[in-house]
Amino acid sequence: MALVVQKYGGSSVADAACMINVAERIRRTRERGDQVVVVVSAMGDATDDLIELAKQVNPDPDPREMDMLLATGEQVSIAILTMALHRLGVPAISLTGPQAGIFAEGIHLKGRIRDVRPERIWRALRENKVVIVAGFQGLDSSDDIVTLGRGGSDMTAVALAWALKADCCQFYKDVPGVFTADPRIVPEARKLDSISYDEMLELASMGAAVLQSRAVEFASAYRVPLEVLSSFEDRPGTRVCEETPDMEKIIVRGVAADTQQAKITLMEVPDRPGIAAAIFTAMANAGINVDMIVLNVRAQGQRADLSFTVPVTDLKTALKVVGEVVPEVASTGVTHDADIALVSIVGVGMRSHSGVAARMFSALARHGIDIQMISTSEIKISVVIAKSQAAEAVRVLHREFELDRESATPRARRRAASPARSRARRTR
Amino acid sequence: MALVVQKYGGSSVADAACMINVAERIRRTRERGDQVVVVVSAMGDATDDLIELAKQVNPDPDPREMDMLLATGEQVSIAILTMALHRLGVPAISLTGPQAGIFAEGIHLKGRIRDVRPERIWRALRENKVVIVAGFQGLDSSDDIVTLGRGGSDMTAVALAWALKADCCQFYKDVPGVFTADPRIVPEARKLDSISYDEMLELASMGAAVLQSRAVEFASAYRVPLEVLSSFEDRPGTRVCEETPDMEKIIVRGVAADTQQAKITLMEVPDRPGIAAAIFTAMANAGINVDMIVLNVRAQGQRADLSFTVPVTDLKTALKVVGEVVPEVASTGVTHDADIALVSIVGVGMRSHSGVAARMFSALARHGIDIQMISTSEIKISVVIAKSQAAEAVRVLHREFELDRESATPRARRRAASPARSRARRTR
Repeated sequence: MALVVQKYGGSSVADAACMINVAERIRRTRERGDQVVVVVSAMGDATDDLIELAKQVNPDPDPREMDMLLATGEQVSIAILTMALHRLGVPAISLTGPQAGIFAEGIHLKGRIRDVRPERIWRALRENKVVIVAGFQGLDSSDDIVTLGRGGSDMTAVALAWALKADCCQFYKDVPGVFTADPRIVPEARKLDSISYDEMLELASMGAAVLQSRAVEFASAYRVPLEVLSSFEDRPGTRVCEETPDMEKIIVRGVAADTQQAKITLMEVPDRPGIAAAIFTAMANAGINVDMIVLNVRAQGQRADLSFTVPVTDLKTALKVVGEVVPEVASTGVTHDADIALVSIVGVGMRSHSGVAARMFSALARHGIDIQMISTSEIKISVVIAKSQAAEAVRVLHREFELDRESATPRARRRAASPARSRARRTR
Repeated sequence: MALVVQKYGGSSVADAACMINVAERIRRTRERGDQVVVVVSAMGDATDDLIELAKQVNPDPDPREMDMLLATGEQVSIAILTMALHRLGVPAISLTGPQAGIFAEGIHLKGRIRDVRPERIWRALRENKVVIVAGFQGLDSSDDIVTLGRGGSDMTAVALAWALKADCCQFYKDVPGVFTADPRIVPEARKLDSISYDEMLELASMGAAVLQSRAVEFASAYRVPLEVLSSFEDRPGTRVCEETPDMEKIIVRGVAADTQQAKITLMEVPDRPGIAAAIFTAMANAGINVDMIVLNVRAQGQRADLSFTVPVTDLKTALKVVGEVVPEVASTGVTHDADIALVSIVGVGMRSHSGVAARMFSALARHGIDIQMISTSEIKISVVIAKSQAAEAVRVLHREFELDRESATPRARRRAASPARSRARRTR
């Protein structure tokens, strides 16, 4: 008997019919003999509707009160899903985040999980019940509800899987798994059987946004086995797991494009210690998440351009912050461009294969795609190009690295075919 | 400085505009220097919408899960109202029932308040905040949310007013107060300046339904001063308070009709100890609230008809229960009639005035209104008549007892003009 944590996102529980579908799926898991703990998000647009209602009475609502308001979305979901399970004859109980022992800390709307004390979940499991837990919420030390930010339900699921020493944490989505590229852009994109935590993290931060980054980071740190799969089909999805030697045989696992970024360039920044610190401290203080940063000083002491990307929604604020910092850092001017795309190839195989970057740049050049910025990490190469060429760039790279060829991963596939639930239960 | 508990029902907080209106009213109360604790219901149809959603996944949802679901309605209200207050610059904080220290017991959906430990409310009041509390909900000993049944928010308000030793508990409604009769039936009906707890109780149980009976009973037992007033006007409403000698000068305080009752008659029930007990124990076990009961045995040992009224919505169940009991009690048959109305006159003055019943029956007779059942209490006389004559009966009795004449209550009016908040603060 395995213990599985299943997480269903908003689109999987959009209405009563979806809830019944999810209940059926949970029943099937139970019929295989597994214990199930379920984490649910708010139904469909519930969270957005609540935000809209708040704006009608106050354009700048207090975060504590927003948390009080938003937490109701998940509370409705857990009650409705539990009722749907009862209708199918499955014993079940709903628990709010606080009841499930999820303790949070930090500021409202952006809380973090501090501790999980799942005594009540254990009790319910011993009573042979399915436990339905409200995602996205916890209790802080003042006895107040704190929500965990966008995607926080993913974090709830991983933290519970860790605390319960679950055999697997499954994320049910409206897609069948993680793909080599966005299938809407690349029709021949393939679903991956497995992917390493690090690769998943790089894809999540790219806006492929299949799982919340913090949740993947946590899962990686504590080795919580994840799986991403469809709530509308009954097929294995993509396992997210520790890297195996097999994985390195694949140079590139996936290609992703992020068209929601804008580029800011500070021209002729003097080469002096503390300049970058001044700029990016100001950005962090303004709550802006800077992604790519490129600085290339020709020779010590010479001025050089400094470029970086920010979410396009933060561009206005970022420019204001930069405007305040520019005199301080003595840059000669600031330019910006919102018509860009960040295109990346990701794969742990890059570590052991050379010439990957050259191959990427050549392929793009052959198709007349101009590269504006380049940044590399150990397992990712990212370039900034014109937004209008993003889709073409993704298709070119998908072809170049033969991501449509399934035969490229013979052993990885075989491994993935053995379901996660057959893994030995870790000692508690 | 007085401490006032204000309760706003669903129609007073139906949408964002209503919420802003309520926030303005709270601000005005504060500007008079009062401390304010507010109890709110769910917005408009929110509770009904949640019930509808539940029915879509399960026609017979588990009461615990219904409580989990329904409690979100009030939680949305407290957050939105608090945000609206912040927008007006009024410091405020929302608290769920459990956070406010409302402890409940009993079965789900029909909980009762077991205890109020308002430490957190006191703390917020000391911080000069308006405290917005979710009505209708409390925490039980299993750490679960329990709701207090229909009208439970009234109970929350009265219990808080008691625990906080508030100077007044104000109920804001979509009507300006308690009337001598329903103004839709009797255009010349007058708003009462004051009414005794007992009179209010008799009117509440008559379906005038201005305040929940349990809340009035509790207020009466612990002498919590109440006031019923309009959330849409800025005028004094009706005070509900201890009986004063003045009050007895008015024979009849009000007339009410309840057309949501049905009559059941057991014919020729034998006169034997335990018969009535058998029938009404069976009714109570089925959760049916029996209102009027009339039995009139001609002579000891003779059979007589036993009639009683039940809410028309419970008629079907009641007939089933009666059907099971009839052989046991050896009645010769059962008849029922859903086309009835219960019409009552209520007033503490009846205690000291004779001939009130005769005057009531004569007035009805003069207008050709036939009386089917009669029942009297110390301060109420009720008759069952044909439903089609209910409105006419109310008008006839309103005229007969001169309820349109304001001059009938000179002293009571003067007393009512001194606002409740000027009452000496009781010691805490």
